[in-house]
Amino acid sequence: MKEFLPQLGKPRPERADAVRNRALLLAAARALVAERGASDVTMDELAARSGLGKGTVFRRFGSRAGIFQALLDEEERSLQQAVMAGDPPLGPGAPGLERLVAYGTARIGFLFDNHEIARASLDGGQKIPAGESPLSRLHIRMLLGEIRPAFGDLDVLAAQLTGALDGPLMLQLPTEDLSSAAAARQRKRLMQGWTELVTRLCALPHRGPSEEAHGVHR
Amino acid sequence: MKEFLPQLGKPRPERADAVRNRALLLAAARALVAERGASDVTMDELAARSGLGKGTVFRRFGSRAGIFQALLDEEERSLQQAVMAGDPPLGPGAPGLERLVAYGTARIGFLFDNHEIARASLDGGQKIPAGESPLSRLHIRMLLGEIRPAFGDLDVLAAQLTGALDGPLMLQLPTEDLSSAAAARQRKRLMQGWTELVTRLCALPHRGPSEEAHGVHR
Repeated sequence: MKEFLPQLGKPRPERADAVRNRALLLAAARALVAERGASDVTMDELAARSGLGKGTVFRRFGSRAGIFQALLDEEERSLQQAVMAGDPPLGPGAPGLERLVAYGTARIGFLFDNHEIARASLDGGQKIPAGESPLSRLHIRMLLGEIRPAFGDLDVLAAQLTGALDGPLMLQLPTEDLSSAAAARQRKRLMQGWTELVTRLCALPHRGPSEEAHGVHR
Repeated sequence: MKEFLPQLGKPRPERADAVRNRALLLAAARALVAERGASDVTMDELAARSGLGKGTVFRRFGSRAGIFQALLDEEERSLQQAVMAGDPPLGPGAPGLERLVAYGTARIGFLFDNHEIARASLDGGQKIPAGESPLSRLHIRMLLGEIRPAFGDLDVLAAQLTGALDGPLMLQLPTEDLSSAAAARQRKRLMQGWTELVTRLCALPHRGPSEEAHGVHR
């Protein structure tokens, strides 16, 4: 797993004041989001609440979306820890397909729980990646390599499955009222759909042409 | 198809001045994008170039992303026409799976050709849907209903496949240098990946448990 996820859990070293400013700003963002949701929070308010100058905030995060991206990264850290070193099947030790099901289910839950922040981190004017965690794609790619489904291009399949996981929540699901009963049903349906999707794709008793040609046996 | 796509190709009637303003603004946006790309174009420039007041532009489109969303909708109209009334397999008349392959391939091509505008239309602060075309999801859902793959929840599968189609280009692919040879390879790989994905999902000689239980024959 190391070669796919070299940077996770190990943020680049930052200068002490940058670390402090980042912590202040993320605390302010968390507080404002808890008080009244992400959608109305402005750069000015974030700067005022954190006690930092607007220039500092802008230089450090580039935009409002950049701040929410940083906040999302923070929130994601416990999911990353669970994936890298937690109990199976989310953590190491379970068969690849079980881990893939567990990861997708956890990611859908994470995106529901942090939907406002995740949406607020999206900004098409920003550089990619924003709004999509590289963790998803790298981890899914690694698991696919382990499962070895009969697909030619596992990099593309990993990108598509990441899209299947993040797309409905980031691009399609309305933001309103995610605590409603309808949202709870939607969450369950997406989790079941993910399980069905990857099980169908990966559990086929099918050998790809290249494997047959090279006489590969599992 | 009608019940899924009632609004396509039939924009709501607008007042004459609104129609004129929209046309002026989209022409200005197109010109500015052609001159130097979408990423640097500001609301102020769009207003100035179109000869409209900034207030008018803001009221009509809400934000910079809203303008690019409107531009993307315009550009998408010829794809919509091809899907609704063009030649098979993109248009009606071919088997569902062939149409699904053709639609995904066309959508990937469209998102490559309009990548800058598509990215610029993304704004997490805006109401959903933005950045994802309902056409994709509705059309894919309709085709899945025709193909009837052995999945329980075709609405969720349609949402996931839409994410598999749009996610890599909207959330993952870096914006730089889409005319390079590497980008051309990427485009081809995504198209092949889509073909493989939906073929595997839909062409399985597999009957779902509910069909077996109810003795459904095809």
